[in-house]
Amino acid sequence: MPLINVYLRQGTTPEHRRNVSAAMHKAMVDVLKIPQDDQFHVFHEVTPDNFHLQPVAFGLPRSERTMFIQLSFNQRTAEQKNELFQAIVNNLRLFADVPEEDIMMVAFETARENWWAAGRVVDPETGYDARMTDVPAETAATN
Amino acid sequence: MPLINVYLRQGTTPEHRRNVSAAMHKAMVDVLKIPQDDQFHVFHEVTPDNFHLQPVAFGLPRSERTMFIQLSFNQRTAEQKNELFQAIVNNLRLFADVPEEDIMMVAFETARENWWAAGRVVDPETGYDARMTDVPAETAATN
Amino acid sequence: MPLINVYLRQGTTPEHRRNVSAAMHKAMVDVLKIPQDDQFHVFHEVTPDNFHLQPVAFGLPRSERTMFIQLSFNQRTAEQKNELFQAIVNNLRLFADVPEEDIMMVAFETARENWWAAGRVVDPETGYDARMTDVPAETAATN
Repeated sequence: MPLINVYLRQGTTPEHRRNVSAAMHKAMVDVLKIPQDDQFHVFHEVTPDNFHLQPVAFGLPRSERTMFIQLSFNQRTAEQKNELFQAIVNNLRLFADVPEEDIMMVAFETARENWWAAGRVVDPETGYDARMTDVPAETAATN
Repeated sequence: MPLINVYLRQGTTPEHRRNVSAAMHKAMVDVLKIPQDDQFHVFHEVTPDNFHLQPVAFGLPRSERTMFIQLSFNQRTAEQKNELFQAIVNNLRLFADVPEEDIMMVAFETARENWWAAGRVVDPETGYDARMTDVPAETAATN
Repeated sequence: MPLINVYLRQGTTPEHRRNVSAAMHKAMVDVLKIPQDDQFHVFHEVTPDNFHLQPVAFGLPRSERTMFIQLSFNQRTAEQKNELFQAIVNNLRLFADVPEEDIMMVAFETARENWWAAGRVVDPETGYDARMTDVPAETAATN
């Protein structure tokens, strides 16, 4: 259920955005151990006059493919968040040919009780819906 | 002033979105005791190629009417948040015919001083604008 | 890197939105001491049937130019946030002729490690990219 909003310039193909979504989702599943079907990504195609960046940021030129990824999930350790960012960057390069210079990310963390999903009942032991059968044994984290 | 962003598929009617907005607002007023005129909702109509969900999530099929509601307000107890979620779900069914399987919600909580509204002056005793006269007696909460 | 999302009604000019962006950015640089090139603003032009406000809010009539500014940055003191809000309001009036009655703001604060930017390496002493040379001497804050 972790919601991801992606803000990127107009002009990308649907296939590119599908690849970006798949790359992010694989990182979320691999690192945060979210369920495989727990993918909720919204892409916002922003016109040039609504995207206000500077041509150089942090000493690096900005390209047309700059994208801002706004993640939200339950609280994690700094190590997990760093691992997640690295996995997203790696996957975006492999799956969608996005160089790391084009990627900006921020994570909004929330308390576990701040989510509500489709009437599901979460097992407090595992953090997963009671109806799920493929919960990873070693983790109790969702969102 | 609690800001609500709603992400939903293209193809709904303005009337439907008005009903969704009214349903959410009534829950915010009833449960969080926000002022009656304190309604700030933004709807984002998302094209299919910008909405990346899986056809089945948490063992439930996703319908065309799936919507993701991103709430933001000051810190509340887990009980209040749960009550709010239930009220929104109930109201969405009653006012806008939205089944609970279509609703995803997340709440971003902030400190009280993280809001600024139209130059208003908030009474620290009540959390309400000093110009307001209909403050519920038993509560000191806004946002 | 602080991400700012601005939600405002359709019908403003690109120049107006550029002025709004410049006004916000100057306040961020002046008060939060973020780097000069650290500007990431996304504007969302909302159609009337997707913007659900009430005609009067907090006892003040809403105008057509109402805008909701959603800021995100690392944790700051209440004093800094208040100073930032005041600077944004002042700059919006001076640079973009926006009256304070039209401005709504919320800040989402995050932990410092919740940001990832373009592969940059941040100096833990200063909070700035190691490649930057114009770090303000008296501050260790970014985002």
